[in-house]
Amino acid sequence: MSDQEAPLRNGVEHKIFEVLPFVDDDYGGVIVEMKTPMDTKNFVAALRDSFEQWRLQGKKGVWLNLPLSHVNLVEPAVKEGFRYHHAEPTYLMLVYWIPEAESTIPLNASHRVRVGAVVLNHNKEILVVQEKYGSLCGSGIWKIPTGVVDEGEEIFAAAIREVKEETGVRRSIYLNVNQSTINIYNLTFSYIYLQIDTEFLEILAFCQTHESFFAKSDLFFVCLLRPTSFDIQKQDLEIEAAQWMRFEDSASQPITHKNDLFKDIHHICSMKMEKSYSGFSKKPITTFFDDKLGYLYLNKQEDMEQPIS
Amino acid sequence: MSDQEAPLRNGVEHKIFEVLPFVDDDYGGVIVEMKTPMDTKNFVAALRDSFEQWRLQGKKGVWLNLPLSHVNLVEPAVKEGFRYHHAEPTYLMLVYWIPEAESTIPLNASHRVRVGAVVLNHNKEILVVQEKYGSLCGSGIWKIPTGVVDEGEEIFAAAIREVKEETGVRRSIYLNVNQSTINIYNLTFSYIYLQIDTEFLEILAFCQTHESFFAKSDLFFVCLLRPTSFDIQKQDLEIEAAQWMRFEDSASQPITHKNDLFKDIHHICSMKMEKSYSGFSKKPITTFFDDKLGYLYLNKQEDMEQPIS
Repeated sequence: MSDQEAPLRNGVEHKIFEVLPFVDDDYGGVIVEMKTPMDTKNFVAALRDSFEQWRLQGKKGVWLNLPLSHVNLVEPAVKEGFRYHHAEPTYLMLVYWIPEAESTIPLNASHRVRVGAVVLNHNKEILVVQEKYGSLCGSGIWKIPTGVVDEGEEIFAAAIREVKEETGVRRSIYLNVNQSTINIYNLTFSYIYLQIDTEFLEILAFCQTHESFFAKSDLFFVCLLRPTSFDIQKQDLEIEAAQWMRFEDSASQPITHKNDLFKDIHHICSMKMEKSYSGFSKKPITTFFDDKLGYLYLNKQEDMEQPIS
Repeated sequence: MSDQEAPLRNGVEHKIFEVLPFVDDDYGGVIVEMKTPMDTKNFVAALRDSFEQWRLQGKKGVWLNLPLSHVNLVEPAVKEGFRYHHAEPTYLMLVYWIPEAESTIPLNASHRVRVGAVVLNHNKEILVVQEKYGSLCGSGIWKIPTGVVDEGEEIFAAAIREVKEETGVRRSIYLNVNQSTINIYNLTFSYIYLQIDTEFLEILAFCQTHESFFAKSDLFFVCLLRPTSFDIQKQDLEIEAAQWMRFEDSASQPITHKNDLFKDIHHICSMKMEKSYSGFSKKPITTFFDDKLGYLYLNKQEDMEQPIS
């Protein structure tokens, strides 16, 4: 019902609020989610009416989720006083803080999280890859598989996935590059499905750096994994982007001496192979006041004596 | 120079590109930063000319940084094919991927990072606070100080800051509430400046959970700190939101038995006090291929024997 239709009740004109669709959040605020298209004029009118109601109700933060399809409402929202909070490819989240008191709007996500996977086998070999992209591409440097942890993904699961994906990259190389020449290289189809399955053991160390992309910071977790699916024969992999390399050979690459992080990771691995280093194991826990599952990473002392592979 | 003024050179009309201000990024793309206001029509014309040039130059990703003051350009940018990448209160970052090949645009920040500070003194007391906001407010539960790590802030520095700020909260309580009644409570002004300085020792454990706010994940680092500035006398703090509590009393709060994380933190602290637990210490390192400083957190074995306070 629009303002024009506001009825007279007891001889007094009562304003009928045309409010935007919203739900309450858990912190005394509201979340507006625009589902149907709206022109800017109606939007501004409804927004002002909504604010009148929210102020009366003592609401605090107002979250406005605008899908990409509602991009026409971004400019009017900002002109009404909204500020950007965060954005993902398909939506923009804006926020408005109503009270005079200091805002308790939570900060935006600040960190990207990456994993590096140390996979050691019982021959004292380490799984290493050569990068197809990035700063190490074409350098000839063999490094541990690395990758970005997705939103909602466990750190240990990301490490397992990255090993599988990075070693699995070879599969598409075989298929795309060598499919017609597969006999020349004397390869059998068994290698086409070559992917390394692993089990997470512990987080050996982690590194925090800043301004990794734009102003955001970076957390890089070095995970120790044990291969579970099979052993790769070194000679079949030399021509590819992944191989088992003697740990000593990996440690003696020039980069290992030049770069702090490479050096420290190899040093930690050495200690681990001598069973004189203890990282953080994972332990499932339930979080504070709901039943959501999380993982605690801590030093389980008994792991000190566990073999690494 | 606009298109209308395009000159004839050698009898052939040469198109003069009216491009947007941009710089190259390190990955074969460009970053457009709008500094001066622009109307939407000129913006779209310049954007199309720019794209013509960028395509010829083989550019990949196009980043478009629109400050809040340029909100009028959001809708035309999206209509030209840009998608949201991320946003902060004062700007919106959009991105466009030119090549046919799969996008290598980096993911947005996915995690919020928080710290919890375990501060133990030589009397086997733990620094605990009561929350003024949040889910534990009004519950009577005493907990370790916690807070959010800012973009660009070191984890260990955030823990030190949070202890100082959270224990420093009492300062404003004294000033605002008790300033006129300060003699009644027999308090001296020395307490007004009460803030606890600490030294970082190690990260005892950390916890990853998901969907902490919207789709973003959460990393919570439990840090062990040693107080350095002074000892607080318990009796002066009972009326406040922070106190030194006997570790046994903190461990015997009902919440400690009910909540996994509380229980595990107390268990780890017990082991630490018996010198039978080793967390991760910090070590400054330089990062991969620039001279930026970062911190590696790892198990320094020699710390096993260090006293905790």
